[in-house]
Amino acid sequence: MPKIVDHEERRNHIADAVTRLVMRSGFESVTMREIAAEAGYAHGAIARYFPNKQSLLTAAFLKLYQEADARIMERVDGLRGLPALKEMCLEILPFDEHGINAAKVVLAFWSYASQDEEIRLIHERHNMRWRSFFRQYLLEAKHDGALKEGVDIDTAVADIAARNAGWQMTAALLPHIATAPVIEASLAAGFESFAASGSNPMGNA
Amino acid sequence: MPKIVDHEERRNHIADAVTRLVMRSGFESVTMREIAAEAGYAHGAIARYFPNKQSLLTAAFLKLYQEADARIMERVDGLRGLPALKEMCLEILPFDEHGINAAKVVLAFWSYASQDEEIRLIHERHNMRWRSFFRQYLLEAKHDGALKEGVDIDTAVADIAARNAGWQMTAALLPHIATAPVIEASLAAGFESFAASGSNPMGNA
Repeated sequence: MPKIVDHEERRNHIADAVTRLVMRSGFESVTMREIAAEAGYAHGAIARYFPNKQSLLTAAFLKLYQEADARIMERVDGLRGLPALKEMCLEILPFDEHGINAAKVVLAFWSYASQDEEIRLIHERHNMRWRSFFRQYLLEAKHDGALKEGVDIDTAVADIAARNAGWQMTAALLPHIATAPVIEASLAAGFESFAASGSNPMGNA
Repeated sequence: MPKIVDHEERRNHIADAVTRLVMRSGFESVTMREIAAEAGYAHGAIARYFPNKQSLLTAAFLKLYQEADARIMERVDGLRGLPALKEMCLEILPFDEHGINAAKVVLAFWSYASQDEEIRLIHERHNMRWRSFFRQYLLEAKHDGALKEGVDIDTAVADIAARNAGWQMTAALLPHIATAPVIEASLAAGFESFAASGSNPMGNA
């Protein structure tokens, strides 16, 4: 019988290996040889699926995005409005060792995305998808009377996204500042700027 | 007479050239040869002052930081409290073509800083200096009665810095979102979370 190779499975396996490796050692110093060793494949097998280092970094970013996305969907299940928005932000914000190491991958990806239009568009597509959830939850909150009068939804979406991105940078570069209580307080301050007073947007958790 | 070489002047000249080049073309694709051509020096002269590409990226970051710093000091001259904080943030936030291109340099620098402890410490020293100004202005605002009751200064400093950083990322990667009115509205929302109502923290500008 001919050997059947599941290419999708192999791509995934390599993406897993490169994500682990880049989270552990950073992107710039990683070599194709180390990636092959981590994945347990021959050097040529990696290059067949990922022709250059940027494509491996993109795969690592997408892996982390999809994993975070799955955790978000689980956390927001059954929620709407500000409670859903809060859960989503708490999942995106970098709270632990995993969050800090993931932020380092994200920072490397941002840098390449800012210098390569093809990579920038991949980032944009995924970033805009999360922004569309922020918007949906804010519109639900508005409908439920949980927003202050006159809050501009576009501004609120952009402000939330900017703060989340800024904390990725802070966690990766200034981990002593990015402690859980300070990140949570920063998120609460953001919510305070658009939530109706008395709506207890951050809950009692 | 022996030729006197002003090494500091040369370093500065090369840092200028590399900053222009990286803002124009991105960091990853730039070669030592192009940097030498832009500076008008021989290849060997560049390597004498900057042994590797990371040291050139660091020089570009420091150049942009020092230029922004000089503009900040000019803008805040004679101001204190929230008006000083507002002017400083308006200078850091990426409002125009220069701001967007500078943000791309900053993103590349963050990526390297997250992967190299020596570079991370250079970033930390400069970032903490700006945070100390944020803190000073907030303490002045508190003294002047311009903050809400119970505002935590550490949180406010961290929130401002995270938002500023997040807008650098947004400007570099999603320039269609990082329009001046939306960035200004995001900054105003941040101020609203800690400024006493009626203190008109953003002024009438």
